[in-house]
Amino acid sequence: MIDNNFKKKVVGVDIRIDRTALGVVNIRGEILARNEFVTTDYPNISEFVTKLAEAIVDMTEATGSFTEIRSVGISAPSGNFITGCIENSPNFPWKGIVPLAAMLRDRLGLAVAVDNNANVIAMAEHAFGAAHGMKDFILVNLGSGTGSCFFSNGHIHRGIHGFSGELGHTTFIQGGRPCGCGKQGCLEAYTAVKGVLQTAREVLAESDKPSLMRTDAELKVRMIVEFCKVGDELAIEVMRRTGVCLGMALAQYATLLNPEAIILSGVVSKAGKWLLEPANEALEAHVFHNMKDKVKLLISDYDDKEINVLGASVLAWGVKEYSLFI
Amino acid sequence: MIDNNFKKKVVGVDIRIDRTALGVVNIRGEILARNEFVTTDYPNISEFVTKLAEAIVDMTEATGSFTEIRSVGISAPSGNFITGCIENSPNFPWKGIVPLAAMLRDRLGLAVAVDNNANVIAMAEHAFGAAHGMKDFILVNLGSGTGSCFFSNGHIHRGIHGFSGELGHTTFIQGGRPCGCGKQGCLEAYTAVKGVLQTAREVLAESDKPSLMRTDAELKVRMIVEFCKVGDELAIEVMRRTGVCLGMALAQYATLLNPEAIILSGVVSKAGKWLLEPANEALEAHVFHNMKDKVKLLISDYDDKEINVLGASVLAWGVKEYSLFI
Repeated sequence: MIDNNFKKKVVGVDIRIDRTALGVVNIRGEILARNEFVTTDYPNISEFVTKLAEAIVDMTEATGSFTEIRSVGISAPSGNFITGCIENSPNFPWKGIVPLAAMLRDRLGLAVAVDNNANVIAMAEHAFGAAHGMKDFILVNLGSGTGSCFFSNGHIHRGIHGFSGELGHTTFIQGGRPCGCGKQGCLEAYTAVKGVLQTAREVLAESDKPSLMRTDAELKVRMIVEFCKVGDELAIEVMRRTGVCLGMALAQYATLLNPEAIILSGVVSKAGKWLLEPANEALEAHVFHNMKDKVKLLISDYDDKEINVLGASVLAWGVKEYSLFI
Repeated sequence: MIDNNFKKKVVGVDIRIDRTALGVVNIRGEILARNEFVTTDYPNISEFVTKLAEAIVDMTEATGSFTEIRSVGISAPSGNFITGCIENSPNFPWKGIVPLAAMLRDRLGLAVAVDNNANVIAMAEHAFGAAHGMKDFILVNLGSGTGSCFFSNGHIHRGIHGFSGELGHTTFIQGGRPCGCGKQGCLEAYTAVKGVLQTAREVLAESDKPSLMRTDAELKVRMIVEFCKVGDELAIEVMRRTGVCLGMALAQYATLLNPEAIILSGVVSKAGKWLLEPANEALEAHVFHNMKDKVKLLISDYDDKEINVLGASVLAWGVKEYSLFI
C-alpha cells in the first residue's frame, strides 16, 4: 500500500525555564527550521500555549506547510508522558498540574506528547546517538537537576505513574547536604549545577592555591569546565570530587540493572575526561564484581541546546495520531 | 488450526545447595507430580545432570508419559538465562561456568531454560501471584542472599549480560559490614540470613533483657520469626532493624524505577508485619515525594518450597521449542 497521506515531518519543542526552542525535524533527525522565544514572557499558561502554537505555525509555514506536520513532541522538566501534563514543577511559573499536551492539541489540531527532559534526551541518543542499537542503557542528565532515563529490552521504562528515573533524589549520603526536594544527602546536591558550585566553594575554602575560580563574577559550571581545560588545579579537583560521587552512585544503578552503557549529558558532563575518569574509577571500584569492566561510561556528543529538540521529535514520531480523539 | 501436538505439561526444577526439587506442572500452575533428591550427593556435575534427567523421567512416567512434556525450566542461584549456565556460584560444588541447560537438553531431548531464583520467583508471582496483571514491579528475595528481579512494561528485565537485580550487592553503608562478595556495607550483609543473624547477635549483646534468642542451639531466622509471633521483644527489635535497612534501600530502588509494587519473598520475609511495618515506614520516609503512598509493599503468599518449582514452570513455557536446535 502506498500511503500518500504519510506525513514526513514533526515538530520538537524544548521548554526550559528561560527560553523555549522548537524545530521542524524529519525522520532522519535533520532539523529543517528553528524558532525560539522567551519562556518567562508568558507567566500565564494559556498565553504561553497560544504563543507556542503561533511559533509552531510561523516556523512550519517558513519551511513548507503546516499541513505536512504529523505531530508534536515536547520536552519539559517535570513533564509526564502518561498524563501529558507538567506536574508540580518547582521552577516554572505555572503551578500544579498543567495539561500542556491537551491544551496545545486543541490549539493546533495535531497529536501532542509531553515527556521530561531526561527521557527525551535518551530517546535522541537511542535514535541517533551513542545508544543507537542498544537495548539496555541508562542516560544521566547533569543539569540544574540530576535526572535519568532507563531503557529496558529496547523500550523506555517510565514506571507505573511516569515518575521513573529520579536518580538525583536517591540518597547518596545519609544526613548529607540539604536538597531542594526537602530531603538530605540527595545525589543531586553533589552532581547537579548547584551541587558542583557548592563543591567549588568548599574546595576554594580548603586551599590557599591560586585558581581562576577565585573571581568576583558569579561562578558558573561552564566556567569551571573551561578552567579545567587550561589546567586549573582546583577546578580539576571540583570535577574529580563530582565524578567520584557520580561514579559511586552509578555503580549502584548498574548493579541493579546491568546496562550495556551509561551515557552522561547536560552541562556538568561537558567537563569531559575531568569528570569521566574519576567517575569511571569509582564506578569500577563499587560495581558488583560480575559487571566489572562491562559497563561503558560515555558522554553525549550532542550540543546541549540541540538534543532536546531532536529527542522531542523522536517522541513526536512515537505518539499515535488517534490520540487526537482520546 | 487445531494443534494436536500441543503439549500440555512442563517440568519445573528448583536446584538449591542442599536439595533439588522438581514437579510436573500444567498451564494453570497446578503441580501434578513431585520428586526430589539431595543435591550434595552429586558433587560431579555430569552425575548430577544424569540423576536430574532420571528424576524427571521417573516423575513424568508416574503421572502420564514423558512424551507429554513440552520443556523444562530450572531455578538455580547464579543461573543465567542468557547463557543457560550456572556462572561462578560461590556455594555449589560445581565451579566456574556450568552449561546446565545444554547438558540437560542433550540428556532429555527437550528444550531447557535456566534462570536465577529471584527471576523465577518473580515469574511465578507475575503469572499466578501478587504481581498478576502488573507491568512494573520489583520482587525482592530475602534468603541466603538478597536477590531481586524487576519487570518493566510487563517483561522481565535481565540486563545486557543477564546479571540484573543484584540488590544485595548495592552499597548500603559505606565501610559497613563485610560482605561475602569482598565489598563492605552491601545491603545483603543487613537483610539476608547471615545479616539478620549478625543483627541478632548485636541486639542480644546490647541488652540484658531475657529473650528466646538466648539459646544454646544454633539460632536460625525461622526461629527468630517464631519468637516474634510470641512477642519476644528482642526478636521483634531484630526484625525492626532489618526492616529499616530494607525500607531505606527499597526507597532508592523505587525512586529510580517507580514500580507499582515491591513484593518480598524468602525466609526473612516470613517475619510478616514485624518486617513489613518498619520497612514500609522507612520506604515512605525516604522515597521521592511524588511516589509517596504509591508503592505497594507486599509479602509473597506462596510457600517458600513451592514457588521456585512453579516459577520454573513459567520459565519453561517461555522457552522456545526450537531452542533445541540452536
